[in-house]
Amino acid sequence: MRRVCAFVLLGLAMGCRQQTAGLWPLYEQTLKHAKYIDLTHTITPAIPVWHGFGPASFGPTLNPATGKPYSYEQDGFNATAYRLSTDQYGTQLDPPAHWAPEFPGIDELPPTFAVRPLVVVSITDSVAQHAGYHLQVADLAAWEGRHGRIPEGAVVMVRSGWSKDWPNPELATRTPFPGVALDALKFLHLQRHILFHGHEPLDTDTTAALEGESWLMHNGYTQAEGVANLDQVPETGCLVTIGYPKFGGGVGGYARYVAICPPEWSHGVTVGELPEAPLARLARPLHWDSAAGMRVR
Amino acid sequence: MRRVCAFVLLGLAMGCRQQTAGLWPLYEQTLKHAKYIDLTHTITPAIPVWHGFGPASFGPTLNPATGKPYSYEQDGFNATAYRLSTDQYGTQLDPPAHWAPEFPGIDELPPTFAVRPLVVVSITDSVAQHAGYHLQVADLAAWEGRHGRIPEGAVVMVRSGWSKDWPNPELATRTPFPGVALDALKFLHLQRHILFHGHEPLDTDTTAALEGESWLMHNGYTQAEGVANLDQVPETGCLVTIGYPKFGGGVGGYARYVAICPPEWSHGVTVGELPEAPLARLARPLHWDSAAGMRVR
Repeated sequence: MRRVCAFVLLGLAMGCRQQTAGLWPLYEQTLKHAKYIDLTHTITPAIPVWHGFGPASFGPTLNPATGKPYSYEQDGFNATAYRLSTDQYGTQLDPPAHWAPEFPGIDELPPTFAVRPLVVVSITDSVAQHAGYHLQVADLAAWEGRHGRIPEGAVVMVRSGWSKDWPNPELATRTPFPGVALDALKFLHLQRHILFHGHEPLDTDTTAALEGESWLMHNGYTQAEGVANLDQVPETGCLVTIGYPKFGGGVGGYARYVAICPPEWSHGVTVGELPEAPLARLARPLHWDSAAGMRVR
Repeated sequence: MRRVCAFVLLGLAMGCRQQTAGLWPLYEQTLKHAKYIDLTHTITPAIPVWHGFGPASFGPTLNPATGKPYSYEQDGFNATAYRLSTDQYGTQLDPPAHWAPEFPGIDELPPTFAVRPLVVVSITDSVAQHAGYHLQVADLAAWEGRHGRIPEGAVVMVRSGWSKDWPNPELATRTPFPGVALDALKFLHLQRHILFHGHEPLDTDTTAALEGESWLMHNGYTQAEGVANLDQVPETGCLVTIGYPKFGGGVGGYARYVAICPPEWSHGVTVGELPEAPLARLARPLHWDSAAGMRVR
């Protein structure tokens, strides 16, 4: 890590010569060379979802004048219509109004939910012994013994390995599943003052009352669910970007999380490694697949 | 800006002492003290949209077993169902597959679409003279005369003032509207190699063939539309986070953009300025409003 730090300091010293550069040197000298890892599942009509919500359906957007789908051939463009039976779908950011209407909905979170230090706490060894293992305060103490105190304002993601079978729909009913104990949530929020925690499964714990989610929501906290690819992210040293459209009065959030990790990290892609602008032309065109209920290649 | 730079250098020097800190000092010493400005409109059933797509409708999620909405009182939680007639709605990130199926859809963009230098080019003076003014190469040359070369890989947002009347639905049919000339798009991509440009209106230009969007999409470029609050962001020195859920085979993106600006900037909120965890309890509960077709307070 020493080499990175020297590089960062040099870069910022250079960038600071330009009075109007502001935060740009952070990108040019550091973020540009980082490794980007997507922590987000792709949303399709076939991903795991609680039976009490049911799946989404996709369709091509219809021209209201004709009732027929727009087409690349006739209209020059295409668009997508979505019937989403729930906002608890895919990789999510739950606002507390999901359970407690006196607290903010998804459009009422402050814009400071944007980028944070990412802490990853692994419970995969314990889950290998017992599929229903829940993160304990002792796991957090062990993590702090290795890495130091969990930073205030961080996003703390729990790596359990649950998502390795995604998008097998059977995941939605598999029990037991790895969770996060209420005491661990209380420790993270009341003792460490994190921004929010996240986990791979679609629920926080396996208690009948969902006591962890209940405590979070009724006390004004947010949480991430359905997080992907945590096996590709180190326990310390990455940032995470947090994005979600602002549906007015929404009580769930279709979210995007991207980990930004140090250049030496073994996973992830760097700016310039894959085509971005322009993007690469693909061998097969995107087209509607009626069986899949979505566009595929 | 000198004071910030000294602060950044000191902070990183301190952070670099810890071997496992990685990119965390960027947050702790700089991003934490930045000003965050949301560039995203709230999505509701009443926002401006092209008549060829039509509006969205929202509803409470129904319990499939009873056909009745979930309720906080009976079920302890609530969720939202969305019927979205188009993915060209609100603040967007258009992938090139919107017009050109041989190029990536929204779920196929690399994860390096996460955080970038934000360039803001204002055409508000010209728009005040002529409502249909389009950004020209000369405007970009003037910007570079003031600030230096537009950084490679940047996001370039065009401030026109169009969105000040948002969410007046009349905006969707108002002509002429401020645009971006094709030559300016070509300059930005072919000469400056930006990641993407963005604009406040829902279309790129007022030509009959939408020549700017056509060129972008058919050449593998992305673009942001329906961008908000660009009047609160300086021309240089901010970063922008880019977020959107990954709808499989999607040809539009419900997006979130947040500008991250230097601490001295006069607009925006800092981490810790507004309650985050826990969020603040609000005076009125979120509840369904049938007339609005959405939850309100």
